[in-house]
Amino acid sequence: MLNKEQIVTYFQSLQDNICAALETADGSGKFIEDKWDRPGGGGGRARVIHGQVIEKGGVNFSAVHGELPANIIAKLGVETGKFFASGVSIVHHPVSPMVPIIHMNVRYFEMDNGTWWFGGGIDLTPHYVNEEDAKFFHQTLKNVCDKHDVAYHPKFKTWADDYFYLKHRQETRGIGGIFFDRLGGQDGHTKESRFAFVKDVGEAFAPIYTHLMAKNKDLAYGENEQKWQALRRGRYVEFNLVWDKGTKFGLDTNGRTESILMSMPPMANWVYNHQVEEGSAEAQTLGFLKKGMEWV
Amino acid sequence: MLNKEQIVTYFQSLQDNICAALETADGSGKFIEDKWDRPGGGGGRARVIHGQVIEKGGVNFSAVHGELPANIIAKLGVETGKFFASGVSIVHHPVSPMVPIIHMNVRYFEMDNGTWWFGGGIDLTPHYVNEEDAKFFHQTLKNVCDKHDVAYHPKFKTWADDYFYLKHRQETRGIGGIFFDRLGGQDGHTKESRFAFVKDVGEAFAPIYTHLMAKNKDLAYGENEQKWQALRRGRYVEFNLVWDKGTKFGLDTNGRTESILMSMPPMANWVYNHQVEEGSAEAQTLGFLKKGMEWV
Repeated sequence: MLNKEQIVTYFQSLQDNICAALETADGSGKFIEDKWDRPGGGGGRARVIHGQVIEKGGVNFSAVHGELPANIIAKLGVETGKFFASGVSIVHHPVSPMVPIIHMNVRYFEMDNGTWWFGGGIDLTPHYVNEEDAKFFHQTLKNVCDKHDVAYHPKFKTWADDYFYLKHRQETRGIGGIFFDRLGGQDGHTKESRFAFVKDVGEAFAPIYTHLMAKNKDLAYGENEQKWQALRRGRYVEFNLVWDKGTKFGLDTNGRTESILMSMPPMANWVYNHQVEEGSAEAQTLGFLKKGMEWV
Repeated sequence: MLNKEQIVTYFQSLQDNICAALETADGSGKFIEDKWDRPGGGGGRARVIHGQVIEKGGVNFSAVHGELPANIIAKLGVETGKFFASGVSIVHHPVSPMVPIIHMNVRYFEMDNGTWWFGGGIDLTPHYVNEEDAKFFHQTLKNVCDKHDVAYHPKFKTWADDYFYLKHRQETRGIGGIFFDRLGGQDGHTKESRFAFVKDVGEAFAPIYTHLMAKNKDLAYGENEQKWQALRRGRYVEFNLVWDKGTKFGLDTNGRTESILMSMPPMANWVYNHQVEEGSAEAQTLGFLKKGMEWV
């Protein structure tokens, strides 16, 4: 029977493998690691890269445990008790506005009363939506899902559309992807079958992003595209600080601030009442930032 | 007896007067106005300036009314009914890191059952804390408070320290100021006496900020100070999007997004695990970002 030590060992190797693949794809940046301890139990390995393709990126691993704080018990709707949580979290902000921002997370949670679940997802936030890339991205995720359960992709794609949504802007953060949470022993699944899926999600990340990096990093751009990138980074900040439950949860419960806010971009801009030019590439991208887009 | 029309007329004239004073002090920028209507009732006048001293600033007036949405009733702890709310809100992000960011708000709220209150405050967020400026700022606010009620300043200064606080950074947003809410007919006060105080708070704004603009706008600075400014702007974003109740309230309740996020800075930056040099001006400033500092 799968135990948490095996999951932790896997998440650590996933972090190692992703960092190695991204360093190769970047060609210049190297990850710098901070090991940290959580006062209540456990800790993590924060890794950050500043490269020639990735301007600011993080690949974080953590494994924490202890007594569940009262405010978490209420939010999760679980019973009092000892918990264990582990996962890998990634956000990359590229130098070029032609390369998309990407986010990936895989996580595992259990309580000493036997409750357990997996969660996670991958979503893509292009500054400029490229339809070929969007199809490649969603098709790859669909293939990963379909391999495990044909019910996964429709459900998890919709979940991503609903989750990565800026209500106050009435736009999605990017083109979505997949999002899932509390995958336990429902629907005939076992801890082993859920873990097998989560592993495949984690392992899909590096091939997806290194492909998108290589394909787009040398595309030409100018000041106009950089200005737009700074505005889109501002929207990314808005989503993460206003709507993202994981960020809010972490900041509310004295998580490690520098790891949680690793997702913040370099140089983000806000322009009052910014309007895009009709028919422009920026307007076209905004047109794609809607729930329910079918890319595959 | 003071009625809401008189308060609205006053807030509009306050907006006009502050805009005029700031245009003069800036010497170049002019406010551009957007009038907007609220679907449920009322509207506002958003005014934004991009000048040579103020890089991005807003002075907003609004007066809205209608049925109180269910989620607001719960949050405010009031009864169902028709409400009316009006106020002036200001945030200025200066070009120079040597000029502080400032925020001011004065507001009035009433319900058709007779409930009413005033709220508001002024707080200062210097990129570099200048002790002389800090004393001037807090002394001016103390004088305004003391003129109306000697109990005001100690209470409202502490309230500002507690309110403008980034729990996840364990630092105050800036050097505080005053903050107050739900000032109704308690402690022997009347609507007239509360309004007289709120008027003086509103009228203190332009003299305070134009003084700080004039005093600091020509101070020398370089790339180092600009980098620090971008990081401090990042913290400003974190406070407003994570902790500020007004922002959250507005975004949750379908307020006018562009007016609410007028407070967002231009060009903010996030650096993973940024550390200041011991003994530097930046380290000195961080030392001042604590609750309970006594400036007067």
